[in-house]
Amino acid sequence: MPHTAELIAVGTELLLGSIANTDAQTVSKALSALGINVYFHTVVGDNPQRLRQAVETAKTRADVIITTGGLGPTCDDLTKNVLAACFGKKLIYNEEAARRMEAYFRKLHPGTGNMTENNYQQAYLPEGCVPFQNDWGTAPGCGFEAEGIHVLMLPGPPSECGPMLQYRAIPYLSKLTDGVIVSRSLRLFGMGESSVESRLRDRMNSMTNPTLAPYAKEGEVELRLTAKAAEETAALALIAPAEAALKEQFGPLVYGVDVPSLEWVCLEQMKEKGLTLSVAESCTGGLAAKRFTDLPGASAVFKGGVVSYTNEVKANVLKVPQPLLEEQGAVSEPVARAMAQGVRALTGSDLALAFTGVAGPDSDDRGNPVGLVYVALAWDGGEHVREIHAAGPRDRVRTVAASHGFDLLRRRLAGLPL
Amino acid sequence: MPHTAELIAVGTELLLGSIANTDAQTVSKALSALGINVYFHTVVGDNPQRLRQAVETAKTRADVIITTGGLGPTCDDLTKNVLAACFGKKLIYNEEAARRMEAYFRKLHPGTGNMTENNYQQAYLPEGCVPFQNDWGTAPGCGFEAEGIHVLMLPGPPSECGPMLQYRAIPYLSKLTDGVIVSRSLRLFGMGESSVESRLRDRMNSMTNPTLAPYAKEGEVELRLTAKAAEETAALALIAPAEAALKEQFGPLVYGVDVPSLEWVCLEQMKEKGLTLSVAESCTGGLAAKRFTDLPGASAVFKGGVVSYTNEVKANVLKVPQPLLEEQGAVSEPVARAMAQGVRALTGSDLALAFTGVAGPDSDDRGNPVGLVYVALAWDGGEHVREIHAAGPRDRVRTVAASHGFDLLRRRLAGLPL
Repeated sequence: MPHTAELIAVGTELLLGSIANTDAQTVSKALSALGINVYFHTVVGDNPQRLRQAVETAKTRADVIITTGGLGPTCDDLTKNVLAACFGKKLIYNEEAARRMEAYFRKLHPGTGNMTENNYQQAYLPEGCVPFQNDWGTAPGCGFEAEGIHVLMLPGPPSECGPMLQYRAIPYLSKLTDGVIVSRSLRLFGMGESSVESRLRDRMNSMTNPTLAPYAKEGEVELRLTAKAAEETAALALIAPAEAALKEQFGPLVYGVDVPSLEWVCLEQMKEKGLTLSVAESCTGGLAAKRFTDLPGASAVFKGGVVSYTNEVKANVLKVPQPLLEEQGAVSEPVARAMAQGVRALTGSDLALAFTGVAGPDSDDRGNPVGLVYVALAWDGGEHVREIHAAGPRDRVRTVAASHGFDLLRRRLAGLPL
Repeated sequence: MPHTAELIAVGTELLLGSIANTDAQTVSKALSALGINVYFHTVVGDNPQRLRQAVETAKTRADVIITTGGLGPTCDDLTKNVLAACFGKKLIYNEEAARRMEAYFRKLHPGTGNMTENNYQQAYLPEGCVPFQNDWGTAPGCGFEAEGIHVLMLPGPPSECGPMLQYRAIPYLSKLTDGVIVSRSLRLFGMGESSVESRLRDRMNSMTNPTLAPYAKEGEVELRLTAKAAEETAALALIAPAEAALKEQFGPLVYGVDVPSLEWVCLEQMKEKGLTLSVAESCTGGLAAKRFTDLPGASAVFKGGVVSYTNEVKANVLKVPQPLLEEQGAVSEPVARAMAQGVRALTGSDLALAFTGVAGPDSDDRGNPVGLVYVALAWDGGEHVREIHAAGPRDRVRTVAASHGFDLLRRRLAGLPL
């Protein structure tokens, strides 16, 4: 099986800094899960000589070369032409690819006539390749083997590269490996990356199949278990005991396996239970509502929210008692509690979240420090308030605070201690 | 002056896909503004042999090599050691760098004693280099010249790389150029990138000093004018007539020069005029409030918002008349109007924005298509509603809709036609 891949991204916009090379991240993650090492990423512009140079270098040190970008008509199919030339392949007209493009073109531009000649140019593919049908754009990708090297070409736009990787390239690469590689990701909230890692160090070093890798992101930690076996069921059977042991070790910190986010877990559980949600936000300023409504289908659960940036709105709209605001200050535990109950009463939702704190850059007029946030959850007959001290700049304080709210919510929904 | 740079990022986390190489984007953008070409980006892991290989290759084709990452104690100062070796430089203990690190360490960990030995290791820098003091972390960067090549080393964390680039590396590089390079960026809202480009094509091709480059981002276009001259005033004088011509050509589409965002322009103008704002959001679900409150100092202007995801909240909280909701549907021009006036009355703000539409993925129960959004602005005695049809997935529809709201607001504040 192949074991060393090199990524070559083609696009002048990357060298100008107009966009970041997120394709490289997406592809690298997938290769890592497949157990294929990546030793180099290279980025070149829309320039055949420099692309050729990058490919020649990659040929000396990798047995998988994956390109992203440079496939469409605007760059004269640069990548396809150069890669075919580097490996001595002819380009051959692929009738099926042409028909697929025509169908995609008609769907996108109904009634505007036929594709132009430069679109048909994209239907020429290296001889003997496996075409990667593009259901998310026009330019097809492909995979071929030559000189003992597997070459895969993917389109540049992340909205095309991502799905083509997942549905075309990964299955292609999986066939090259003996057996299958399966991953499961445990998502944790409530413990820092370094604490999680130090608790796992002994376990991680002794594990080979499955392997265990931690990834940190925005105050959360993901633990990825990856196993290799002849078949999927055998790989899952290798993962199962390790997954159980991690769930035992981290208990209620684990909020899900192979789930996209805390708020997604909340949405799914609330849909299932037929419960509704509302939010009252001061320091998070709409971020919690935005994150929840980022999820398609949120409207089945989410009734609404109030961004109460002033005491006036807290008092008049959320009915937080004026004396409370004056005596305790807006950033206080009782105000968080009153905000949560206030928005719950206002919208008639079953559950409600509230956030009040200091996002920064400066401490508030009562001297509360940046990062102090009170996060409240209210339900029929009660509330709970969590006091957090988030480190970092304004946007991180806001993100972490919103996540704590969703953590309270998913714990309540799962009957866990708050 | 140097004219070709190569970027080398060091970090196994990049090859694993744990993070994207955003440093490369940041540095490339800055180099492009300085008029220095970038032909290759390379990423290697924490591996001395492969880093050495990347550096040797870069030496054959660039006269500026900029590294990011691999400077801290966790990677044994890999980058510094390899780059010094590649250019035959000794590492020398830099007393001042050590003192700076001690001060930073004490500030970060008051009362925890002294730095450890591996921290002091970071104070060794290549002989004859210009140290880049790190005010945003511990590991210092540096710049030196050897074999006719300028080598710059920057730390990997984006929160350190960005400011060190801006405050240390760009001044270092600027000194190498004959004269200065100055850029001014016009920000446009309300015309697609391809329309802007086609209107500029003739002008762009004939311009050499200043140059003109368009960049597209999230439904907006940025036009960057870059001039080179002996002094800043002379460069600005070269830019001025081109800037005036572009302002004349695009008129009210230009919302600012060297400004960070539409909402920032709104906040600044509202602070100046002593006006307040509130927002009512249906399809944007809190995004408009979130974007406005992302700005430090928003609390001087922003009173609050209501996320009215259900008709119930639109009727009960925003006082949108029930018959209007039933007859016209929630996604309609009169409802947008009523939402804006409703939140304005509720919060007592001077101005108010409202958003109601279909963010997707599916059309609504009245058959309104994905992307249809009514954006309303209300003021004392009137409203204006803009109907938009945004293309793309859910998050893009929401982003574009929120931007149209801020566009209405800044036009009203500037006395422009809505």
